[in-house]
Amino acid sequence: MGSGMARNLLRAGHQVTVYNRSRAKAEALVADGARVAATPADAVAGVEAVLTMLSDDGAVRQVVAGEHGIVGALPSGAVHISHSTISTALARELAELGHAFVSAPVFGRPEAAETKKLLVVAAGAAGELTRCRAVFDAIGRQTVIAGDQPWQANAVKLCGNFMIASMLESFGEAYALLRKGGVDPHIFREAMNGLFASPVYASYGTIVAEERFQPAAFALKLGLKDIRLVLATAEECAAPMPLASLVRNNLIAAVAAGEAELDWSAFTRVAARNAGLPATER
Amino acid sequence: MGSGMARNLLRAGHQVTVYNRSRAKAEALVADGARVAATPADAVAGVEAVLTMLSDDGAVRQVVAGEHGIVGALPSGAVHISHSTISTALARELAELGHAFVSAPVFGRPEAAETKKLLVVAAGAAGELTRCRAVFDAIGRQTVIAGDQPWQANAVKLCGNFMIASMLESFGEAYALLRKGGVDPHIFREAMNGLFASPVYASYGTIVAEERFQPAAFALKLGLKDIRLVLATAEECAAPMPLASLVRNNLIAAVAAGEAELDWSAFTRVAARNAGLPATER
Amino acid sequence: MGSGMARNLLRAGHQVTVYNRSRAKAEALVADGARVAATPADAVAGVEAVLTMLSDDGAVRQVVAGEHGIVGALPSGAVHISHSTISTALARELAELGHAFVSAPVFGRPEAAETKKLLVVAAGAAGELTRCRAVFDAIGRQTVIAGDQPWQANAVKLCGNFMIASMLESFGEAYALLRKGGVDPHIFREAMNGLFASPVYASYGTIVAEERFQPAAFALKLGLKDIRLVLATAEECAAPMPLASLVRNNLIAAVAAGEAELDWSAFTRVAARNAGLPATER
Amino acid sequence: MGSGMARNLLRAGHQVTVYNRSRAKAEALVADGARVAATPADAVAGVEAVLTMLSDDGAVRQVVAGEHGIVGALPSGAVHISHSTISTALARELAELGHAFVSAPVFGRPEAAETKKLLVVAAGAAGELTRCRAVFDAIGRQTVIAGDQPWQANAVKLCGNFMIASMLESFGEAYALLRKGGVDPHIFREAMNGLFASPVYASYGTIVAEERFQPAAFALKLGLKDIRLVLATAEECAAPMPLASLVRNNLIAAVAAGEAELDWSAFTRVAARNAGLPATER
Repeated sequence: MGSGMARNLLRAGHQVTVYNRSRAKAEALVADGARVAATPADAVAGVEAVLTMLSDDGAVRQVVAGEHGIVGALPSGAVHISHSTISTALARELAELGHAFVSAPVFGRPEAAETKKLLVVAAGAAGELTRCRAVFDAIGRQTVIAGDQPWQANAVKLCGNFMIASMLESFGEAYALLRKGGVDPHIFREAMNGLFASPVYASYGTIVAEERFQPAAFALKLGLKDIRLVLATAEECAAPMPLASLVRNNLIAAVAAGEAELDWSAFTRVAARNAGLPATER
Repeated sequence: MGSGMARNLLRAGHQVTVYNRSRAKAEALVADGARVAATPADAVAGVEAVLTMLSDDGAVRQVVAGEHGIVGALPSGAVHISHSTISTALARELAELGHAFVSAPVFGRPEAAETKKLLVVAAGAAGELTRCRAVFDAIGRQTVIAGDQPWQANAVKLCGNFMIASMLESFGEAYALLRKGGVDPHIFREAMNGLFASPVYASYGTIVAEERFQPAAFALKLGLKDIRLVLATAEECAAPMPLASLVRNNLIAAVAAGEAELDWSAFTRVAARNAGLPATER
Repeated sequence: MGSGMARNLLRAGHQVTVYNRSRAKAEALVADGARVAATPADAVAGVEAVLTMLSDDGAVRQVVAGEHGIVGALPSGAVHISHSTISTALARELAELGHAFVSAPVFGRPEAAETKKLLVVAAGAAGELTRCRAVFDAIGRQTVIAGDQPWQANAVKLCGNFMIASMLESFGEAYALLRKGGVDPHIFREAMNGLFASPVYASYGTIVAEERFQPAAFALKLGLKDIRLVLATAEECAAPMPLASLVRNNLIAAVAAGEAELDWSAFTRVAARNAGLPATER
Repeated sequence: MGSGMARNLLRAGHQVTVYNRSRAKAEALVADGARVAATPADAVAGVEAVLTMLSDDGAVRQVVAGEHGIVGALPSGAVHISHSTISTALARELAELGHAFVSAPVFGRPEAAETKKLLVVAAGAAGELTRCRAVFDAIGRQTVIAGDQPWQANAVKLCGNFMIASMLESFGEAYALLRKGGVDPHIFREAMNGLFASPVYASYGTIVAEERFQPAAFALKLGLKDIRLVLATAEECAAPMPLASLVRNNLIAAVAAGEAELDWSAFTRVAARNAGLPATER
């Protein structure tokens, strides 16, 4: 994700210094005009803004507050823009570190990052959002402002992933019933294309119908992490989410079945297994 | 629904005799060229095909096998095309009555019926489907063939309604969480429009965000009937559907709250109430 | 069940005529003093009360309103006492047939019926309950009066079976977690004996820990019927029952896995399977 | 809890030094022969074993590893016996601190602690369990050994609380249905006493029937903490627990309704509210 975003920032005329744990990934951006830093602290020397895009809470904590981390090194007046899908609790912690902070998670696959098609959800103080607008415009096709507290953007992002997971569960159950009744899932997928007319239904509807869970565009264990985070936020806000709980249980059942590294849509196999259906042969 | 379908059959050049329990509704079609019959039995005298479009299993049983019903009166060789959203069990019964039978439920609101925008899901013997094709083409924009057993079309239709109900539940839970967290539901709706790009998400996302459940485009008590039917089919096929069960429980909770006559999307208020949220004021 | 109840009525000095579809089962009671009837109608000639104890709604309908059924033959002034676990809807129908009607389902296995240890739950008009008291005392150890509408007794009976099913589900999930964590289920069972001190927890706790689902004391398919009935009553009363729905889905998953004829506690295998646990070897 | 346990240790002839954040509570034990310490570190000077009994993970961390904590002060060769209901993750951490460690959570209310009626669930290295036996015998009526890894005892304790919560949910749903059907919950409670013959069903069955949630024997917010912990353990072990998830959602709904400080059985009001039932008047 990060490299696509960095390239679009460079294309938009920004000066960009990149840091990645695997230095080779950072160096691949030199040809595009990026400078490579040896540590997160080095990367933020003299910057106006630092963008972080990491896999989970642990990785963000490490880059922000670990050895040679951002905290302390970030120039006074610079803003930290967090694009990672992290917990709302961590977003609140990051907002308390003494520098300006904006949370701006994104929807979209790596291809969307490369092609500037990301959907950015941003939250933070109005003044900070204004000053970050050029960054959002450089990396995405659309920016939605979630509120003035950074964690609200993370809540929206997590809820968006929950919406996709819910759609997957509904496909899983419908396909299982129909397969038991002798109806080809592709027929139902075609009807749902007619009904919803959504590219997300079209693509996941095909993946689940064909049980084509490899290669994993988004690993199931990461999907479980996201649903865990949305349920944690739900508890913070005192809002029960029974459908999110159902998805969580099925993701855990998928992990128990050894599917943690498959695409996260593989948890739809739980509905199929509970209906006594064998895996689709290919 | 029926009047729009009848008008499109007339437009396509078919001879149409109409019957409705409220005779005035039938007579409204005379200007379009329809003949009005006094009973279902009268309506089928000499026809090649009879189309039924009724609200539930009971109404279909009455028109088919009640006094002056279709059975017995339908000419030998004529086909019964059932467009109603009925149980798969009734579809199997109707297929055993001694005349040709095709099940062809439709997706779409009354406006879609008027404007020939229905999505038709048809199932039955291949020869019958071929001979009914002209009817499907006259009333809809697209026809999906579900299988050679009529009840399979009803299973697909019921699963389609389940998919919409699942989407509604996911909106209900996400909105409840976000409202508790101070995020305007419309912001999330906008993000979901960016993500799913589906007109169904757009329209229901707005209805649920505004809690605008009147007038009822589809009454909640009918939605409960459909989810009950999909769960009955699931039991016939031995396929558990936990998400359908969740939706059913929330529809029942909505009935207990006096919301049976509202639009079925009103069951999303259950998630809001369980999060302690008051109804949205307007 | 019926033979134990009949024997206890004979022991209490009542005159008893018995009818069973398998005549041999009826004739086994001749030695105890029973008269055998050829049909349900014959059995009720001249009686003060008829007791029915059958497996499901269909069997009750047949014996009551089928050929040579009770209706019509039951003497004016005689009472029909229904002991079967039937739907509340059927109980309401039976109360409308023109003769006195009391619903009195029982808790207890066949051994309890033999040894007069049944728990009777009765409902109906106060005067009828008074006159049936001698019957209840003859067959059970305790009688609970549920209300003045017969169907209320069936609601209590169905809810009682739901309570047992809920306990089974809780054992299933706890055992699955603990087995994954290397804890012997019997250790947990022992702790639960210490905590609940209930013979029901003791016996089912052992059955589930050992996965000893044969012979079936109560067939899973009958358990599914009962949970289906409690959910139907819940819908009649507009009361959502998410735990009953969870149990229903797991019972259906068990049917899909070919376990319909095992003891109903076998649905606890669903939690085990979803945790990736193999069946316990013996 | 702690004072009853300390008193029973004193009665059994052990020398006991006590520490409590509220010193007055500690001093109340002086008359029984206890010595009072100013800090956890002081309390463990020269001991063979230290018993900790605290409300949650945070309190345990503070007493163990906070300022003047046990770690470092505990004599070499002494054992830490943790009686608190804590997470399995924390139990694993405590086992890694360099001294002998046994986890021994207990079932029972403060009265049971006073009267030596606790049920102890212990886990740890066999040798340590043997040497702690005198402690378990002094404080409880029965000890169950869960395994050789301390966290396994916590898993058993958490699962036990889950079993009680499951029973509460089943009562909540059954009572709601029956109240909607005009059946007095006390009638059902009486039938369940006949069926389960368990003191836990008897006492909670009455509390829930009367909706007598004050005073809180066990606060709902603590119940939510325990169910959160059992779900965390379930995820660690890859075992889905849909019933625990259902209970969690209802506990959160109760918190949203302002019931966090009531007895945890108050979450049964969620089923009542979703059935449209008003609170029981007293």
